[in-house]
Amino acid sequence: MRLIDDRTGLERLEREDCLRLLASQRVGRVAVVSVGQPLIFPVNYALDGDTVVFRTAAGTKFDAAVRGAPASFEIDSFDALYHTGWSVVVSGRAEEVVRPDHLARLDELGLRPWASGDMSNWVAISPDHISGRRVVDLERARELLDDRQPN
Amino acid sequence: MRLIDDRTGLERLEREDCLRLLASQRVGRVAVVSVGQPLIFPVNYALDGDTVVFRTAAGTKFDAAVRGAPASFEIDSFDALYHTGWSVVVSGRAEEVVRPDHLARLDELGLRPWASGDMSNWVAISPDHISGRRVVDLERARELLDDRQPN
Repeated sequence: MRLIDDRTGLERLEREDCLRLLASQRVGRVAVVSVGQPLIFPVNYALDGDTVVFRTAAGTKFDAAVRGAPASFEIDSFDALYHTGWSVVVSGRAEEVVRPDHLARLDELGLRPWASGDMSNWVAISPDHISGRRVVDLERARELLDDRQPN
Repeated sequence: MRLIDDRTGLERLEREDCLRLLASQRVGRVAVVSVGQPLIFPVNYALDGDTVVFRTAAGTKFDAAVRGAPASFEIDSFDALYHTGWSVVVSGRAEEVVRPDHLARLDELGLRPWASGDMSNWVAISPDHISGRRVVDLERARELLDDRQPN
């Protein structure tokens, strides 16, 4: 079954498709609020069940903003020729992981920070809500098909 | 000159490099705040000088959240094999474009929404701040080079 949003023409992805896509990617973006301004940071991440986990460098603006704060996490993939693509957003609260047994489990995920420096803090975003959208530009598809027709 | 952040090992990009990257891409993500929760939405966009412009569907949650609100816009590109990549963030305020002469100029940018539906509102994010980062995982580069050495 395909769920289409009549207002935007976007297809809604089911939760299980969102989780499959979250498991398939390595880099996403975290948005948090700092003094009323939304901030966005790309992170390399892993999925722990349905929870997004990543590492932060202690003492950074990002580290301060993300701990204990409402957060959203986004992944996407788009094709600029065909105007197709999808996105998944996880909304929840970012919490620093401090329990030793939890930290031990996360260490087994093999998530290595790409940036150097001391990325010693683990942060988890447990989802209050997971949503996904897929866009297909039917007009663009028609144009590309027309270009391929023999004259 | 390369500016390296000692704490994270990330290279800071100059403003002109950020603008060049912003001009080279078609899809980015907008973050806004709605009732304390940060929201992220992918958008296809264009660059109008140093201002990010995109279209929204009237009456959507996104449209309501973005108009007149503090906003950030992000683009990035990452390589999951080499652990390299870059990101650019534009921070400012999202304003609906209403002046006829401004709308006429934006129409000439040729920005067509990929989603169907009525995407009649134009929104502009004028930058208060533009920042860019580049990450290179030197340890990963060394591993990949070692793998290529003949035995």
